[in-house]
Amino acid sequence: MKKIAILGSTGSIGAQALDIIDGHSDQLKVTVLACAKNIRKLCGQIEKYKPEIVVVHQEKDARQLSEKYPGVEVLYGTEGLIAAAESSYDLLLNSLVGILGLIPTYHAVCKGRDIALANKETLVAGGQIIMDQVKKNQVKMLPVDSEHSAIFQSLQGNKHQQLERIYLTASGGPFRGYTPEQLEEVTVEQALRHPNWHMGSKVTIDSASMMNKGLEVIEAKWLFNVPVSKIQIAVHPQSVVHSMVEYIDHSIIAQLGAPDMRVPISYAFGYPDRMENNAEALDLFGAGAELTFERPDTNVFKTIAIAYEAAEKGGTYPAVMNGANEALVQLFLEKKIKFTDIQNTIERIMNAHVPTYNLGLEEILEADRASRKMVYELLK
Amino acid sequence: MKKIAILGSTGSIGAQALDIIDGHSDQLKVTVLACAKNIRKLCGQIEKYKPEIVVVHQEKDARQLSEKYPGVEVLYGTEGLIAAAESSYDLLLNSLVGILGLIPTYHAVCKGRDIALANKETLVAGGQIIMDQVKKNQVKMLPVDSEHSAIFQSLQGNKHQQLERIYLTASGGPFRGYTPEQLEEVTVEQALRHPNWHMGSKVTIDSASMMNKGLEVIEAKWLFNVPVSKIQIAVHPQSVVHSMVEYIDHSIIAQLGAPDMRVPISYAFGYPDRMENNAEALDLFGAGAELTFERPDTNVFKTIAIAYEAAEKGGTYPAVMNGANEALVQLFLEKKIKFTDIQNTIERIMNAHVPTYNLGLEEILEADRASRKMVYELLK
Repeated sequence: MKKIAILGSTGSIGAQALDIIDGHSDQLKVTVLACAKNIRKLCGQIEKYKPEIVVVHQEKDARQLSEKYPGVEVLYGTEGLIAAAESSYDLLLNSLVGILGLIPTYHAVCKGRDIALANKETLVAGGQIIMDQVKKNQVKMLPVDSEHSAIFQSLQGNKHQQLERIYLTASGGPFRGYTPEQLEEVTVEQALRHPNWHMGSKVTIDSASMMNKGLEVIEAKWLFNVPVSKIQIAVHPQSVVHSMVEYIDHSIIAQLGAPDMRVPISYAFGYPDRMENNAEALDLFGAGAELTFERPDTNVFKTIAIAYEAAEKGGTYPAVMNGANEALVQLFLEKKIKFTDIQNTIERIMNAHVPTYNLGLEEILEADRASRKMVYELLK
Repeated sequence: MKKIAILGSTGSIGAQALDIIDGHSDQLKVTVLACAKNIRKLCGQIEKYKPEIVVVHQEKDARQLSEKYPGVEVLYGTEGLIAAAESSYDLLLNSLVGILGLIPTYHAVCKGRDIALANKETLVAGGQIIMDQVKKNQVKMLPVDSEHSAIFQSLQGNKHQQLERIYLTASGGPFRGYTPEQLEEVTVEQALRHPNWHMGSKVTIDSASMMNKGLEVIEAKWLFNVPVSKIQIAVHPQSVVHSMVEYIDHSIIAQLGAPDMRVPISYAFGYPDRMENNAEALDLFGAGAELTFERPDTNVFKTIAIAYEAAEKGGTYPAVMNGANEALVQLFLEKKIKFTDIQNTIERIMNAHVPTYNLGLEEILEADRASRKMVYELLK
């Protein structure tokens, strides 16, 4: 029986993870459930899965849950997440959204726990310190992201040193083909309308701005230990080929499927085995019948160039980029700034940033905080 | 140093194999060269590679070569091929064309020698007896065929029992989209004009009639130990995706690349390593920018349905189908029959065939001979 801790259980990835677990209750068991604020949904999960530990954001929610479920250890806040990350289980699914996710991943990895990683910021901001601990503690870092899972699957049975290039596919989002002028006018409603994937609002906006792909390039650099110069973004509007790996013999291995997160989740849960799941099979002669690939337009979507530069420069640059982006997306969702203000402001912040290197967890979190503060100062 | 025996060294696959060897002379050495009749080209190869053994078709050619190259053991005919197959080397590349290829593969496999298999007929006609010996003698049977190599590569790092389906891709040949009436009128010259691959004339005609794909379905059945019901042909005119494997989790792994046989050849030579080669890299944003998939038209290309049926029925059916096809392609190349006579005559022969089961090498070769005889009787 594999014991699974789920951080972010009431979100989109959490719900799909529980769907996989439902189908494999003979092999998988939930021991930790954590969410921020959706207490009502969480209660249903507690009653169904009877976890040992539950973590919520606020103390008052924790107190109420503790009274309602006396058999469950209910924790709260960052300390709660850390305690949960250090508790007893076999695999931590981290599907928290935002920089908060870095903290429990770091503590889990330091304890040698295997990770199913859906939290992008963990590696974007903390790549170096996380991967150092992953190596040191021989942790399995399993990507839960359609693209990184595709790359991971395409690397199976191959030697890392024979990797020549990664093609990281991108749907291109709802604004593919837009001019800079058109991009300036887009609304929150338009940005939230992703053509292929149903995701949370932060990720959906990142998809529309293509910052999502920039973050994924940095993640891929750390996960697969390759320079970003070997990572090529390929815009692929059908979202059928989830990514590819080219080898020194000019052979390319790709992973394809319907856009359904249950595939990468179940792969991380079962690895190296594959698990049956409720994901839709790809209809190769339907949705898969015509697949196209094109270069991204980095003149319009400046986020991509910014992310490559952040990755090349290293140090606090990626954390600062990510922190600024997170704050800016929030402001955009609140309709306080224009869509293009996201990339333009990140660019200004990056240009002004004085980096530090040799980072620990605290320095990274501090760079993140400073970056967010800078956003509010610049835009107030 | 890996010692390579090449049967069919003056053909298209043989030449490309030697190109790979040229690039890896520190790792690969040729010990056997065999060809049918292109003695002039063979002489150049003997002088360059200094093999231990050479095999040709005719005794008189063997005698001349023996005088010219006294240090080389020159053999001839079927007995020569068998002796070469049983000689000392590490890997046998069998790129002979036609049923003749079955004999040396069988003898090599019985001796426990690893095979890089480019000869389709080996498994089409002799699948059962070959794979029995492969298992018994723990032989590595490495496919040298863009499609089967793609499947083989897509299976690496995966469990065979988790395979759900194979998508065997097909260019569709020069007559894709033709009506039965149009197909009846095609000329030898048209049939020899393959859109994507440069191959020998027999394989090119098989490609045009789609019998090639039928043969490959049967090969895949044996190579990968799957029922043909799990093998789906996907017409993919761009010849970029060389085949795919779908697993129980609805994840599909595919192998892609420019259409260049040096990729599968070098994969077989280096397996499980990949080897650098002179193959062209795929330009994903050029030749790979638009990829399409459609179902084959089995009403027009009856060869496909015939091959599935032959595979399902087993016994001597596939050998008879293959033998008839080989004879008919020859007659078509000689402009003695129409293009559609190939599939129509195979169909008649298959319908009339009284099969035998529990086969040995002799029974298979006898079924092949009888089938060819039947072709000449029906068409005289």
